[in-house]
Amino acid sequence: MLNNSATLDRTFQALADPTRRSMLARLSQGPSTVSALARPLAMSLPAVMQHLAVLEESGLIRSQKSGRVRTCRIEPQALSVAERWIGERRLEWEQRLDQLGEYLATLKI
Amino acid sequence: MLNNSATLDRTFQALADPTRRSMLARLSQGPSTVSALARPLAMSLPAVMQHLAVLEESGLIRSQKSGRVRTCRIEPQALSVAERWIGERRLEWEQRLDQLGEYLATLKI
Repeated sequence: MLNNSATLDRTFQALADPTRRSMLARLSQGPSTVSALARPLAMSLPAVMQHLAVLEESGLIRSQKSGRVRTCRIEPQALSVAERWIGERRLEWEQRLDQLGEYLATLKI
Repeated sequence: MLNNSATLDRTFQALADPTRRSMLARLSQGPSTVSALARPLAMSLPAVMQHLAVLEESGLIRSQKSGRVRTCRIEPQALSVAERWIGERRLEWEQRLDQLGEYLATLKI
């Protein structure tokens, strides 16, 4: 539970930045080299690497070096955990609405 | 787009904390007073208020004061926007997998 919570902390923290979200959007369409990821971004390569490090530490991506080329891939599992957490809250909230609806219906009788 | 991006920044930032997530989990089951939200938490009331302020600024909750009692409610819209963003990435990734699958199938023929 604690570990899962720390994972969610890191995942949501990594998602709380527009550059990192744009990198994830790019990587959800397929693997990419670091230089291809950096090309559309108006920032230095060290800044790009820092964002990628945050994404990799959160488990949202992984990267592999082959010669001088580093390739990044999305790791859908971490995104799924975050999506599931939000989905569970929505479900609880919808169930609560249903119960309210049922209660209101009994009042009308 | 920019505004939407800033909203996502704030939403994911607000979600990146276990105390704030536990508050949202509580509020997804129904509205709650601040003091009821604070009760299970091992922290001072000002610390609780600060977490609630982050949640309210992100649009994830809203609160209303009646006399001396402040009641908080979840605002499911902000959670939906975050859930949708993640869901879109998953969809893109799954489509990419499907395309790879189709490509591999053509190789087998």
